[in-house]
Amino acid sequence: MDHIYRVNKQSETFYAIERGGELRRAVLTGDDIFAGYTQGAVIPGGLQAVKVLAPVLPSKIVCVGRNYKDHALETGKALPAEPLIFIKPRTAVVGPGDAIRLPPGVGRVDHEAEVGVVIGRRAHRVPRAKAWDYILGLTCVNDVTARDLQKKESQFTRCKGFDTFAPIGPCIATGLTGDSRAVEGWVNAERRQSSTTGHLVFPIDQLVEFVTFVMTLEPGDIIATGTPAGIGPIVAGDTVTIKVEGVGELTNPVQEEK
Amino acid sequence: MDHIYRVNKQSETFYAIERGGELRRAVLTGDDIFAGYTQGAVIPGGLQAVKVLAPVLPSKIVCVGRNYKDHALETGKALPAEPLIFIKPRTAVVGPGDAIRLPPGVGRVDHEAEVGVVIGRRAHRVPRAKAWDYILGLTCVNDVTARDLQKKESQFTRCKGFDTFAPIGPCIATGLTGDSRAVEGWVNAERRQSSTTGHLVFPIDQLVEFVTFVMTLEPGDIIATGTPAGIGPIVAGDTVTIKVEGVGELTNPVQEEK
Repeated sequence: MDHIYRVNKQSETFYAIERGGELRRAVLTGDDIFAGYTQGAVIPGGLQAVKVLAPVLPSKIVCVGRNYKDHALETGKALPAEPLIFIKPRTAVVGPGDAIRLPPGVGRVDHEAEVGVVIGRRAHRVPRAKAWDYILGLTCVNDVTARDLQKKESQFTRCKGFDTFAPIGPCIATGLTGDSRAVEGWVNAERRQSSTTGHLVFPIDQLVEFVTFVMTLEPGDIIATGTPAGIGPIVAGDTVTIKVEGVGELTNPVQEEK
Repeated sequence: MDHIYRVNKQSETFYAIERGGELRRAVLTGDDIFAGYTQGAVIPGGLQAVKVLAPVLPSKIVCVGRNYKDHALETGKALPAEPLIFIKPRTAVVGPGDAIRLPPGVGRVDHEAEVGVVIGRRAHRVPRAKAWDYILGLTCVNDVTARDLQKKESQFTRCKGFDTFAPIGPCIATGLTGDSRAVEGWVNAERRQSSTTGHLVFPIDQLVEFVTFVMTLEPGDIIATGTPAGIGPIVAGDTVTIKVEGVGELTNPVQEEK
């Protein structure tokens, strides 16, 4: 099991692999990280010596609404019979430590802790039984949402599409399964969301089948699998952390946009 | 006024500029077509000697719902007080002449003729008065929609996001304004949609301001400005043409997906 980080050090951006407690440069065996890698030189100082970036710059993030039973209940809506999908644009992506910027005048903004599925191979019409062949690994996603705007209009694109509203990271964890993986959302020292992927209405393999029936997924694309109960507002000065068991912690400060 | 085409000839893909009835290679003055171009060598045979491709591969297509008064009426919904936006992914894009593929089991699929606005410069929080400084030009968009699916669920992402559901082209027309530009949708020999951008609820400059308040637009991104009345089904064997005055015609055959 590897943790794949995209990092910056002295103006150079590259991938690094954490395995057995040691951080090494990834040596790409093809054109990009998705084509494969081997372990290169040790990075002295490890993660403390680099800036960790969003692990991928996806061409799209396909999100799933109301995919935990408890969250569907708290929003007062029925469970969907099929996955309800929407897209967050790449321009919303930020990495660990980057600020979530609250745009002026949008009202309440919420955190949403989610497990992100990072696609490793071009995927079109993938049957459920083969879904994991197309997954590079898992990451943490914060599906930041302008809740007042969401209640005002039918489409989720605006309320979830603002720049900085898709923190992802800190890494891509390979070799995991989707079974009963803990996912938590913290604001400052308070745990507000806590569930496991065992409570997903539609599990990861089914989501891959469903989404790739509609649209081709490219390497680096992400499926954000939905958020459990406990969503709530974030305000300037807060620090939000999304934790996914086996992946790590994604922490972002919250600021008012200037 | 130029018509900017992206074309393929003998396995080479490049941009070509039609000006004064003559097609010449674009000589890029920077990294890409958005950084500028000059006129190069004449292409013998003109457009007949090349394959015309989608003029850009946008990182996102931001679409606007119910933006013509007559179309809002035909769907039975109220006019929105603000633009209602949603995203079509890049994987939906096809070029002129490429097939619109009808996925199995989705029911009725409709054409939607639209004017596409092609962004030329990175655009964030652009005031309405400066919107046209960020626009490279206009194109035709067919916002193909699986209508039965659209009625089944709240989000438009699935019904409008299938591969091949975003034909764009045939070119980017520069030097146009958005005022009262004719837009038509044809199926075979029948004109089904006919309006002008003069009937937009939210005109182009206002859309640029609204969308870039939410999300940064990258060069090549497209705003699809909404469709007028006259939407209707397309079936395998049909040929659909979107015409935008001053841009040209975007024609695509319709096929059942294998």
